[in-house]
Amino acid sequence: MTYFTKRYHPPGTAPGTLVEDEHLESRPLRLKLMDYNTQSLEEHDDISFTECRPYLERPTITWIHAHGYAGAELLRELGQTFSLHPLALEDVLNTGQRPKLENYDHQLFAIMSLPLWDGDDIEVEQISLFFGPGYVISFHYGDHDPFEPIRKRLRAQGGRLRERGADYLFYTLLDVIVDQSFPILEELGERIETVEDQLLDKPTRLTLERIHLLKRDLLLLRRQLWPQREVLSQLQREDQSLIDETTKPYLRDCYDHTVQIMELFETYRDMLAGMLDMYLSGASHRLNDIMRVLTVIATLFIPPTFLVGIYGMNFQHMPELHWPYGYGLVWLIIVAVMGGMLVYFKRRNWF
Amino acid sequence: MTYFTKRYHPPGTAPGTLVEDEHLESRPLRLKLMDYNTQSLEEHDDISFTECRPYLERPTITWIHAHGYAGAELLRELGQTFSLHPLALEDVLNTGQRPKLENYDHQLFAIMSLPLWDGDDIEVEQISLFFGPGYVISFHYGDHDPFEPIRKRLRAQGGRLRERGADYLFYTLLDVIVDQSFPILEELGERIETVEDQLLDKPTRLTLERIHLLKRDLLLLRRQLWPQREVLSQLQREDQSLIDETTKPYLRDCYDHTVQIMELFETYRDMLAGMLDMYLSGASHRLNDIMRVLTVIATLFIPPTFLVGIYGMNFQHMPELHWPYGYGLVWLIIVAVMGGMLVYFKRRNWF
Amino acid sequence: MTYFTKRYHPPGTAPGTLVEDEHLESRPLRLKLMDYNTQSLEEHDDISFTECRPYLERPTITWIHAHGYAGAELLRELGQTFSLHPLALEDVLNTGQRPKLENYDHQLFAIMSLPLWDGDDIEVEQISLFFGPGYVISFHYGDHDPFEPIRKRLRAQGGRLRERGADYLFYTLLDVIVDQSFPILEELGERIETVEDQLLDKPTRLTLERIHLLKRDLLLLRRQLWPQREVLSQLQREDQSLIDETTKPYLRDCYDHTVQIMELFETYRDMLAGMLDMYLSGASHRLNDIMRVLTVIATLFIPPTFLVGIYGMNFQHMPELHWPYGYGLVWLIIVAVMGGMLVYFKRRNWF
Amino acid sequence: MTYFTKRYHPPGTAPGTLVEDEHLESRPLRLKLMDYNTQSLEEHDDISFTECRPYLERPTITWIHAHGYAGAELLRELGQTFSLHPLALEDVLNTGQRPKLENYDHQLFAIMSLPLWDGDDIEVEQISLFFGPGYVISFHYGDHDPFEPIRKRLRAQGGRLRERGADYLFYTLLDVIVDQSFPILEELGERIETVEDQLLDKPTRLTLERIHLLKRDLLLLRRQLWPQREVLSQLQREDQSLIDETTKPYLRDCYDHTVQIMELFETYRDMLAGMLDMYLSGASHRLNDIMRVLTVIATLFIPPTFLVGIYGMNFQHMPELHWPYGYGLVWLIIVAVMGGMLVYFKRRNWF
Amino acid sequence: MTYFTKRYHPPGTAPGTLVEDEHLESRPLRLKLMDYNTQSLEEHDDISFTECRPYLERPTITWIHAHGYAGAELLRELGQTFSLHPLALEDVLNTGQRPKLENYDHQLFAIMSLPLWDGDDIEVEQISLFFGPGYVISFHYGDHDPFEPIRKRLRAQGGRLRERGADYLFYTLLDVIVDQSFPILEELGERIETVEDQLLDKPTRLTLERIHLLKRDLLLLRRQLWPQREVLSQLQREDQSLIDETTKPYLRDCYDHTVQIMELFETYRDMLAGMLDMYLSGASHRLNDIMRVLTVIATLFIPPTFLVGIYGMNFQHMPELHWPYGYGLVWLIIVAVMGGMLVYFKRRNWF
Repeated sequence: MTYFTKRYHPPGTAPGTLVEDEHLESRPLRLKLMDYNTQSLEEHDDISFTECRPYLERPTITWIHAHGYAGAELLRELGQTFSLHPLALEDVLNTGQRPKLENYDHQLFAIMSLPLWDGDDIEVEQISLFFGPGYVISFHYGDHDPFEPIRKRLRAQGGRLRERGADYLFYTLLDVIVDQSFPILEELGERIETVEDQLLDKPTRLTLERIHLLKRDLLLLRRQLWPQREVLSQLQREDQSLIDETTKPYLRDCYDHTVQIMELFETYRDMLAGMLDMYLSGASHRLNDIMRVLTVIATLFIPPTFLVGIYGMNFQHMPELHWPYGYGLVWLIIVAVMGGMLVYFKRRNWF
Repeated sequence: MTYFTKRYHPPGTAPGTLVEDEHLESRPLRLKLMDYNTQSLEEHDDISFTECRPYLERPTITWIHAHGYAGAELLRELGQTFSLHPLALEDVLNTGQRPKLENYDHQLFAIMSLPLWDGDDIEVEQISLFFGPGYVISFHYGDHDPFEPIRKRLRAQGGRLRERGADYLFYTLLDVIVDQSFPILEELGERIETVEDQLLDKPTRLTLERIHLLKRDLLLLRRQLWPQREVLSQLQREDQSLIDETTKPYLRDCYDHTVQIMELFETYRDMLAGMLDMYLSGASHRLNDIMRVLTVIATLFIPPTFLVGIYGMNFQHMPELHWPYGYGLVWLIIVAVMGGMLVYFKRRNWF
Repeated sequence: MTYFTKRYHPPGTAPGTLVEDEHLESRPLRLKLMDYNTQSLEEHDDISFTECRPYLERPTITWIHAHGYAGAELLRELGQTFSLHPLALEDVLNTGQRPKLENYDHQLFAIMSLPLWDGDDIEVEQISLFFGPGYVISFHYGDHDPFEPIRKRLRAQGGRLRERGADYLFYTLLDVIVDQSFPILEELGERIETVEDQLLDKPTRLTLERIHLLKRDLLLLRRQLWPQREVLSQLQREDQSLIDETTKPYLRDCYDHTVQIMELFETYRDMLAGMLDMYLSGASHRLNDIMRVLTVIATLFIPPTFLVGIYGMNFQHMPELHWPYGYGLVWLIIVAVMGGMLVYFKRRNWF
Repeated sequence: MTYFTKRYHPPGTAPGTLVEDEHLESRPLRLKLMDYNTQSLEEHDDISFTECRPYLERPTITWIHAHGYAGAELLRELGQTFSLHPLALEDVLNTGQRPKLENYDHQLFAIMSLPLWDGDDIEVEQISLFFGPGYVISFHYGDHDPFEPIRKRLRAQGGRLRERGADYLFYTLLDVIVDQSFPILEELGERIETVEDQLLDKPTRLTLERIHLLKRDLLLLRRQLWPQREVLSQLQREDQSLIDETTKPYLRDCYDHTVQIMELFETYRDMLAGMLDMYLSGASHRLNDIMRVLTVIATLFIPPTFLVGIYGMNFQHMPELHWPYGYGLVWLIIVAVMGGMLVYFKRRNWF
Repeated sequence: MTYFTKRYHPPGTAPGTLVEDEHLESRPLRLKLMDYNTQSLEEHDDISFTECRPYLERPTITWIHAHGYAGAELLRELGQTFSLHPLALEDVLNTGQRPKLENYDHQLFAIMSLPLWDGDDIEVEQISLFFGPGYVISFHYGDHDPFEPIRKRLRAQGGRLRERGADYLFYTLLDVIVDQSFPILEELGERIETVEDQLLDKPTRLTLERIHLLKRDLLLLRRQLWPQREVLSQLQREDQSLIDETTKPYLRDCYDHTVQIMELFETYRDMLAGMLDMYLSGASHRLNDIMRVLTVIATLFIPPTFLVGIYGMNFQHMPELHWPYGYGLVWLIIVAVMGGMLVYFKRRNWF
């Protein structure tokens, strides 16, 4: 993950300007349509927007999922059909937005963040959702399609999803996006525990780097996800014209999930901070150990080494050299000095 | 305790789905029923749900305690009898939820966290409670039964518990769960004091690890317990139809306990943070001590050792070697150098 | 001070249970009664509760101060006379409660924390106060009597205290308790300054321990005292039936004191945190100093020592030993090497 | 950036005093006027304030941009024409103010902060805006003109800007100022990533200084920018007389940008804090590595060196010197001692 | 500055007691009176309170400034004339109070903190202000008179100050006190920058102490000043009877200043915290540098020194000593060992 992910127009550009991003490699757009009520279900893959239009006018519930790169052309067309606000369209195009919920008259516009494992790295993809009476339109630029389980549930006749309105479909899509965080947090939790075990067992420079990178990823991921709590909290306060009273408990449940996700983030962050403290404290403990050994050995041998140096000098007049017990005496002095220092170190608790 | 304890369905599963967890070892469910009013009390252990049903229709107060693994089958049956919300049933099954309070029409649903010592480790078990007019249904998946003292009090005729409604029974159960934290916090407080004594006396690598593990346990436990404060705060704001005005002071008292528990957590956390700081500061103090000794001894002896090395050389032409007082002079120089350094070190406050 | 000071019943005990604590050494209860209005004052020391009763029924203001251990028996009796809430009585008995204010119909119940020097240690004693129309009942389990100055002021005719109602007496008692913190904080402030002087002058391991213990005491004391701010803030919001409008400015003044006390706690805590940082930074500074000296001396002498070792070898064929200027040359090399290193160290700013 | 940037009069000066700052090098003021409605557009560069006046009385929308140093004289004149509050004029003159929004009767006065790269440094320039019915007056003391793109959009007929009122122009100007932060934050984000790479690869003293300076710049920039969030939040709450309902979504969008900017600041700050921790932890890791090597080598060789010193002594009576296998024995002892120490170090995980 | 500056009566003293502080050296009180309206101005220096009285009864605006030590006697007299609240009088006498605003019926009472340079130290002096219809009474115990510029403005006829009511005078006095913080913060800002330069250039133990003392001063000063923000925020919410609507923008401006002052405090504190981190990180960097050099040199020379020691032994049977190329071989080995270690260190990036 990089630090700055927001795409923006140069300052001074008119708001709502839909300029296609040349850096974005072209990825052909595919529209998937599902149109259903309790009795019937129609499903179309890869149809054009013009073909979608008649479904939107029917009393049935219509879900259009735009997968891939929604060009400026399509968005403008879409904006006219549904009288969408230009600012919303600009946000669909310029991915990397902060999750938010906007209420334009008879329409809710939500931006959500979908976290995904991209190999060993975490990526966050933007999903934009328009929801109005009888329809939901979702945009997703990315490879993975998180909504396949929803389609399966829609195809099964008799499920709750088929019996309820577009607001319940809208909730379901939000719920899927929010719940994607759980497997990711579970995996992160396991990684943190692995690193913690390493830390307590045998910490290396790699352990340190892993802690740092986990902290960084958590921080960046958290910034992308935490506004979702506000989105769901706001949705509960929406009036009944768009969201039915019976859907509210489900939204509350989904809101609880966002709260839990944020609490896990807090816990993980505190955990990692504690592990860094632990690393530093452990390092200073080991350093003390090493220094103690070095000091004990060096100080035990340095004075005797000096002493034997004395009697290695070649002066002509060194009376001690001729004493019969000189050599034995030197050994005695050495043993006494070393013993004295050992006692001193012992008393200072150095080993 | 592990970091990620929540059990969840794969994202996209329909909300309210009751799928039994195959990983959960089967633990047969036992229902305990108590049905009472001021005059009479009926108690049944290990009866089936069908046998419970008639009691629920009576005007007396009925408490059903489901101990063990409440399978999907029973929950579905239960849901139909009491028209329970499917999301609540899902939360009963998927343990590891965050404590919360939900108000479904004529029924309160509470999830609480019961902290327990599991040997030397702290475990948190989920207790789910349904409370409606005239009944309380509690679910607990775990070995220990915290509600035995309540049963004793119920059996004793004339107690306040027998004279009051189901709301008071509901309060009593919550109170027991909340108060379980006190003995655990008392024990933790003693452990922290033990570690602190070690820290001030003779800190080792083990002390450090203990501080880290205590911090970790506190953090994980706190995450599980702090939403209970919100649960009890919310309960006080519930209207009178379910909770009688005379029960409110008791709920306030229980709320005060949750506040006290959180304050203890804060205090302990700050205490442990202070102890880590203390460890680091103490370690750097000891390191300074050790380095001082090493430096003093090494620097005292290194120059003299060099000097005696000089006169240990075997050059043919070294005039000093033939001086009659050369040897004495060397000793003089050595003593002067060492004395000078001692004075210098003394002035620098090095010993 | 210990970390866990709250006394509690085992979880599951009925709320309001008054069980005497066997661990509490018996300390005979003494009741002091003062009954007054503007004109007259009656004072009785060490009377029984039965004797107190008639005073309570008079229109005069009655203050009963229960000093010592209020047994379960007396509390039950008291509870019946004044129809006190059982939860309040439980809190009087189980000392170590968090300061709080409860409003039971026509009666306010306050728990306050009285901080005291116990030799070199700080102790916190609980004072419980009941206040209703025309009476105040105070409970205090401890040696020191903080209310003696109030009694003196009551005995003096014509003081404001005699002219006003029981609410003013209630305020006065709270005010005395709150103001006890000032001398303690003043003393703590002086200790912190002493430690700071030590830190800047000559820090030792003892300095470090003192900082740690001051931090700890502040933390524990703060936990006991800060809810008193909430008590006084709540009192100001009480309606006029119990507390007269003219007493409100006094309560506001007392509230301001609690705010000032909390600000002092914050300041002291930040101060101590800064001193720990200072200690660590200073230690690393000293370590650098020491290491610099060690390194300079060791590296100055190690290469020359190696060199003189070379010419101390006893090989038969070492041509340099026979050079007439060999010895002088060795000295030249040594001086050159040492000088070069000195220049290098100087440039690196090592001394 | 310097820490204290606010310009202020000496305490006690009358509020609203317009004293010209002698330290400010004179920079001639240039007024740019644009007067437009849907059909027509008039543009004048470098005209006098007297010439501007008739435009202000027309029903068209008038935008006067004062670029350069607005002297006390002009401001006083301006104040009389529009009955501006003297405090607002003082704030225009004394740059370095905190962003804020003031509502004087029929007029909004906003102070905004424009961040700019000044070579390698970030500068913040103040832009002051008056907005009333039909006019916007903007003041900017600085070299760079951020409003040029707006003029281009105004010149293009048929744009949304031409069709809407002065409130939309006011929004547009604010939006341009707010969005200037994005390129700066993008650049800062890249710098932080560069420093992070250095940190993980090969940290030097320069890395440390860069982290410190980035932290400092972020802190100072954040202080200047964060009140802008409050300005935009306040604007949304303004009543409809000045700001049209259809402009509100645009203000909300601009507000969202200020929120995103603040979140980026938080993320960057946390990132940099984490990098400093990482630096410290890494340094203590390296220190441990170095000390380990030093200790192993020093302790391996110090005892043998002492031993060979023994047999370099010149005592007449040293029996070992005459043993035929003495020399071999010494080698044996040396190898044994070194081997033993190697085993000990290995067990302690020192290499 | 000392940590505990509040003066307080012993706990239990009656509130509103005016006991003169014997520790306070007597400093004769001087009253300065200014009585004015738009047309006329009377000014009296050093008059008695009895002489002041007639001015207070006139419809003109009267400002009495009491400079020096206001004894208990005068305060009591004053209290009777204006029916001041005894608690306010006590606060005037007991300096070192927290800034606050009290509304007693028809009178506002404000305590403010005036920060001043006392040589190199910062002192905070209390200024107490009573403001009622037509009068302001100010008390100040200290040497410096901050209100002289106000008097100058009052003397100048035609100024805004002369044309407006006592509320504007009250605002003006508060404004002067608040603005005194700017020069002090400017000076502190410069000191912090100086210390920062030292830190980046050549940090010494003195740098460390300066950072600590700056942090301490900021902390203590901040505690004294931040309640002033609350005072000014409260004043804006006062009803119109005392404070005219046209004075409100000026109060808002003054409030903005208090906000800016607090933000500067935050910035400075964060800055200093960052500098301490920087110091620690820099110290550990330097330590690493030093240790690297020591280790490289020591480990390069220790093994060769051991080797030459070997051949300095005096054993009779050392065959190598007699080899014709023994000496050359030793040199070869030494060069090989040293070269090998250099390569190893190079690879580890140690120099």
